[in-house]
Amino acid sequence: MRRAIDLAARGLGTTSPNPVVGCVITSAGGSVVGEGFHAAAGGPHAEIWALREAGELARGGTAYVTLEPCDHHGRTGPCSEALLKAGIARVVVAVPDPNPVAAGGLKRLRHEGVAVESGLLRAEAERGNAHWLTYTRLRRPFVTWKFAATLDGRSAAADGTSQWITSPEARADVHRLRGQHDAIMAGIGTVLADDPHLTVRPGPATPLRVVVDSEGRTPPGAKVLDGAAPTLLAVGADVPREDALRVPRGPHGLDLPALLTELHRRQIVSVFLEGGPTLAGSFLRTGLVDRVVAYLAPAFLGSGAAALGDAGVTGVGGIHRWEFEDVVPIGPDLRVTARPAPPKEN
Amino acid sequence: MRRAIDLAARGLGTTSPNPVVGCVITSAGGSVVGEGFHAAAGGPHAEIWALREAGELARGGTAYVTLEPCDHHGRTGPCSEALLKAGIARVVVAVPDPNPVAAGGLKRLRHEGVAVESGLLRAEAERGNAHWLTYTRLRRPFVTWKFAATLDGRSAAADGTSQWITSPEARADVHRLRGQHDAIMAGIGTVLADDPHLTVRPGPATPLRVVVDSEGRTPPGAKVLDGAAPTLLAVGADVPREDALRVPRGPHGLDLPALLTELHRRQIVSVFLEGGPTLAGSFLRTGLVDRVVAYLAPAFLGSGAAALGDAGVTGVGGIHRWEFEDVVPIGPDLRVTARPAPPKEN
Repeated sequence: MRRAIDLAARGLGTTSPNPVVGCVITSAGGSVVGEGFHAAAGGPHAEIWALREAGELARGGTAYVTLEPCDHHGRTGPCSEALLKAGIARVVVAVPDPNPVAAGGLKRLRHEGVAVESGLLRAEAERGNAHWLTYTRLRRPFVTWKFAATLDGRSAAADGTSQWITSPEARADVHRLRGQHDAIMAGIGTVLADDPHLTVRPGPATPLRVVVDSEGRTPPGAKVLDGAAPTLLAVGADVPREDALRVPRGPHGLDLPALLTELHRRQIVSVFLEGGPTLAGSFLRTGLVDRVVAYLAPAFLGSGAAALGDAGVTGVGGIHRWEFEDVVPIGPDLRVTARPAPPKEN
Repeated sequence: MRRAIDLAARGLGTTSPNPVVGCVITSAGGSVVGEGFHAAAGGPHAEIWALREAGELARGGTAYVTLEPCDHHGRTGPCSEALLKAGIARVVVAVPDPNPVAAGGLKRLRHEGVAVESGLLRAEAERGNAHWLTYTRLRRPFVTWKFAATLDGRSAAADGTSQWITSPEARADVHRLRGQHDAIMAGIGTVLADDPHLTVRPGPATPLRVVVDSEGRTPPGAKVLDGAAPTLLAVGADVPREDALRVPRGPHGLDLPALLTELHRRQIVSVFLEGGPTLAGSFLRTGLVDRVVAYLAPAFLGSGAAALGDAGVTGVGGIHRWEFEDVVPIGPDLRVTARPAPPKEN
């Protein structure tokens, strides 16, 4: 199953609005005879690739799949049927399918006499499919907030200069992560201050660029409007701007849940939020950040813009308490990943 | 030698104003027959402990010592002489002694026909003796700046509350590090805001407490004046306060080099600087911080006091660029250690 989870990860960034899925098939004798992963929406599912590779050796064998096989006729036939036809005797699944349209694969397989198991390495497989599971369960995209800062939490110097606090290695890593998301989001403050391009280089991925711009101030010549990738300007509902998505206003800028609901409708499974501090604070206080990726440089500024603006905290009792997930050196910098702490058991 | 370096570290915090030293002796046949470390000023040196343990087995053997053996009659006899008497055939040293009074041990040993080598694992041994080497070479204490902050660099919430941003595990680690330093220093802002005790618990260590208080505002009832450990108030030269050390004023508060020179005169080998942000900024801009230990909580505040105040940087070109030395999880938090980046080679 661990191998299947690794295979699934190869699809990150190209399968939306589908999940990433990996599959490993072993023969009746227990040897690995087929492997596959889901690479693109509309293309074959992981099980199909693995069955093709296994051929006749699948008969009597076991299929390890990171997500419950589908049981519906979408753009591809149901995987449950394909597994039955191939004579698979046992199906082991990490995560049951939370999508009511596609679910039911295990039930059907069991009904047809196949031995089925569910839950093997479930937590690990859920992490690998976090974008899609959040998208499916909460009906909004998974939001990753990324920031780069000094050890004292500054993202720019006192005079506004900010290039380059982190290293070329860290910036390359940011591009890699951008390519794993369906949309890259920034606030109007960042667009006006830095005129970022918000594209992925190198590579063919062209995530949607989303600018949260409640007053519609994005200038026509901004790099985010250059046509290198699609761009969505989100403005207040009362802003008469034809080229923009009009979103109701909320207590802190735009109504962010409404914006995310609209992105879900557009099949945006994941959002990479690149600040600035004001927008990040609004997302954090609204409970809409699912993961934080911080690039920390071994450097100090002592003044200048903080990485995070008002997040609705006045006293230390209201602190946003998270937990570290991962800490990795990236060139001379650190990449620190954190996730919301699970609710305390009482 | 690595074992000798580990042994040396056991003396951290109790040997001042002496260095930490470890020694391993192997017999002529190559077996380890004696180990020792320097535990307290005035007590036997590492070599003496190791020779005692080795006894006759030292004859013809090798001594591995983290620092060049002394050649002078201080409170204890010269180690060079003791090694000669024991019939040691070869002495391997990591770091030559930079102290002109004590140096010369290797020269004497070589002159007496002992094989000598110097430089084995030198960088590692220098790190282990960083406090004393800086004290001896620069004639000022080694300064470690410690801070605790959220991932967004805040040390207190907007209303000033700051307890407890980091975990009990992190706070226990702070006490361990305090015990490895000769002095614990804080600025008057921290004393007035938090009334810290600045002692080490548990344990017998009583580092000097130093309050940098240019206007002499430390109130008589402050916990730092409670007699649990000695305390030094450093005030401006023009402040008529009898119980304080009067220090000239510098461009940013007190003249910090003058203060450190006075601490050197008092045989303070190492200072643990616990902030606050203003004092830390003054030390950093003056180039007087040798190591940073940051306890980072997986938490966000978005407002409140920053961990670091004005450090003399206006544009990002003037950033204080350091390098990471060590990153360790401490309970739910991270302890990140950094040191100044070495000067770039041209």
